[in-house]
Amino acid sequence: MESVLISEVGLRDGLQSVKATMPTAHKMAWLDALAGAGLREIEVGSFVPARLLPQMADIAEVVQHAMALPDLTVMALVPNLRGAETAIATGIHKITIPVSASEAHSLANVRKTCAQMVEEVRQIVAYRQLHAPQVRVEVGMSTAFGCTLQGQVPEDDVIRLAEALANVGVEEIGLSDTSGMANPAQVRRLFLRVREAIGERTGAAHMHNTRGLGLANCLAAFEAGVRTFDSSQGGLGGCPYAPGASGNVVTEDLVFMFEAMGVDTGIDLDRLLAARAILRDGLPGEPVYGMTPEAGLPLGFTYANGRSPLQPHTPGPHGDLA
Amino acid sequence: MESVLISEVGLRDGLQSVKATMPTAHKMAWLDALAGAGLREIEVGSFVPARLLPQMADIAEVVQHAMALPDLTVMALVPNLRGAETAIATGIHKITIPVSASEAHSLANVRKTCAQMVEEVRQIVAYRQLHAPQVRVEVGMSTAFGCTLQGQVPEDDVIRLAEALANVGVEEIGLSDTSGMANPAQVRRLFLRVREAIGERTGAAHMHNTRGLGLANCLAAFEAGVRTFDSSQGGLGGCPYAPGASGNVVTEDLVFMFEAMGVDTGIDLDRLLAARAILRDGLPGEPVYGMTPEAGLPLGFTYANGRSPLQPHTPGPHGDLA
Repeated sequence: MESVLISEVGLRDGLQSVKATMPTAHKMAWLDALAGAGLREIEVGSFVPARLLPQMADIAEVVQHAMALPDLTVMALVPNLRGAETAIATGIHKITIPVSASEAHSLANVRKTCAQMVEEVRQIVAYRQLHAPQVRVEVGMSTAFGCTLQGQVPEDDVIRLAEALANVGVEEIGLSDTSGMANPAQVRRLFLRVREAIGERTGAAHMHNTRGLGLANCLAAFEAGVRTFDSSQGGLGGCPYAPGASGNVVTEDLVFMFEAMGVDTGIDLDRLLAARAILRDGLPGEPVYGMTPEAGLPLGFTYANGRSPLQPHTPGPHGDLA
Repeated sequence: MESVLISEVGLRDGLQSVKATMPTAHKMAWLDALAGAGLREIEVGSFVPARLLPQMADIAEVVQHAMALPDLTVMALVPNLRGAETAIATGIHKITIPVSASEAHSLANVRKTCAQMVEEVRQIVAYRQLHAPQVRVEVGMSTAFGCTLQGQVPEDDVIRLAEALANVGVEEIGLSDTSGMANPAQVRRLFLRVREAIGERTGAAHMHNTRGLGLANCLAAFEAGVRTFDSSQGGLGGCPYAPGASGNVVTEDLVFMFEAMGVDTGIDLDRLLAARAILRDGLPGEPVYGMTPEAGLPLGFTYANGRSPLQPHTPGPHGDLA
């Protein structure tokens, strides 16, 4: 049986994208529910100054809570060495650093060139080696499939950057479709090229649903050998443009797709769907997306491992002639 | 360059699913706009009694209008021989008959068994041979990927039905995911099996977006050799459950996916997006879906044939850290 790792990013990518701040107790309850549903890797927040992102002011406390949960890889985003130092001091399992493949995006976003960011990552890896060699270092390569400032990003730039990051010792290098510009042919081609260049250091597919292609792009990445996928519960975060459209790929829909395909995620959909109530309560008025949650699981659905869900089937109308 | 045929079903699957009736003049203007955008096959309505579907009362008039448009295959749905006779009398190019793979769905929907429907189709083909041999006969096989009444539909049932339909002379046999239960692995497997069984008579993929997998399933069908795809402008029709979620695959998003992949559709996205205004005007208050229309085409986007769109790029926010 094939299996994938779903890496939940709602507490980071989601919560930093909304204006409201989820209370710490709600974050902890949401974390408990997500881990209880079987998520084995959760990005719990960002180590950034609270004046820049007040939503993340309680990150140390949230990490501490998450570290007590069994069978969970706890990770957080760090934008630079200072963030990495603070993160590593908490005892966290894994850190992830955003590095843009587009020079224009990198300068606009972190006021550093791509080369300067590789140097920053080199310092982070060196610090990690010295102080906490067990901590895994991941890079999520932003704008790998296109940039709203620069337009197309040459694939050679992505490959060169992946190689540079592998050379400084990053364990996992994933590709992010920051602005939802990717298409399945490009996703497959680029992940295959990255794997050819850096082998087992090839990391997660972080896809956005901006133009509705999120799941199709995840499918293409899966076919190219990717086995880790970022997504967020309720599609929270990312860059949603369309009313009713999520920015990030919706964890619930992604899990449904893989399990229906016979690919094990280890996640219990009944429990995952129940966790949506905590998200709603913690962010009143914020839209919580997802089509599988609304439609229900199809009659006869079984998990990849053969188990049947508890959730009752939601029957639909039968008047459709095709 | 690879190419696909997008078969627009909004005027049939869409308009029969909404309570309001689009005025005939609006239907004609919408048809003109769709054909003008490059759609080469349009299902313009159903030949069913007006007392059952008042939305389709003007079908003969709509067909007549469509037949005057250049380079367009005009098709309509017919549920039975009587409908086929009326359709063929209009001079239409192609008719499509819904036949369910699920016995339970077939009985509930048309009060006939699957075998009785094959016999009905045999009579339609015979009538066509005698009176209008140039008319193409298609079957859209409903519930091919699952049924809300019966649950799973055995793949062998789908294959046997496809063979039976091919044996009575149907030119194209497509598979419909009536209730949005399909997954990409199943779509690929089943289309490959159907092609093995009936070869070039394998027809369109008619996918619904009920659980968000519409485009992923189209991608899987494409990979299995399918080159005709049903979709509807604005996602009108199908069985939408989720607020903000279309039932049918959205033509605009499907065209964007294929063109971005380098697969030619022959469709102009600027013109296709402009046609949405006619749909909105003709069905006031009805939701018109689509993520690509909201997000705009990405900066640097080019069509499969190398052409650039006229539509200006819609820039997005740049604050996303991954």
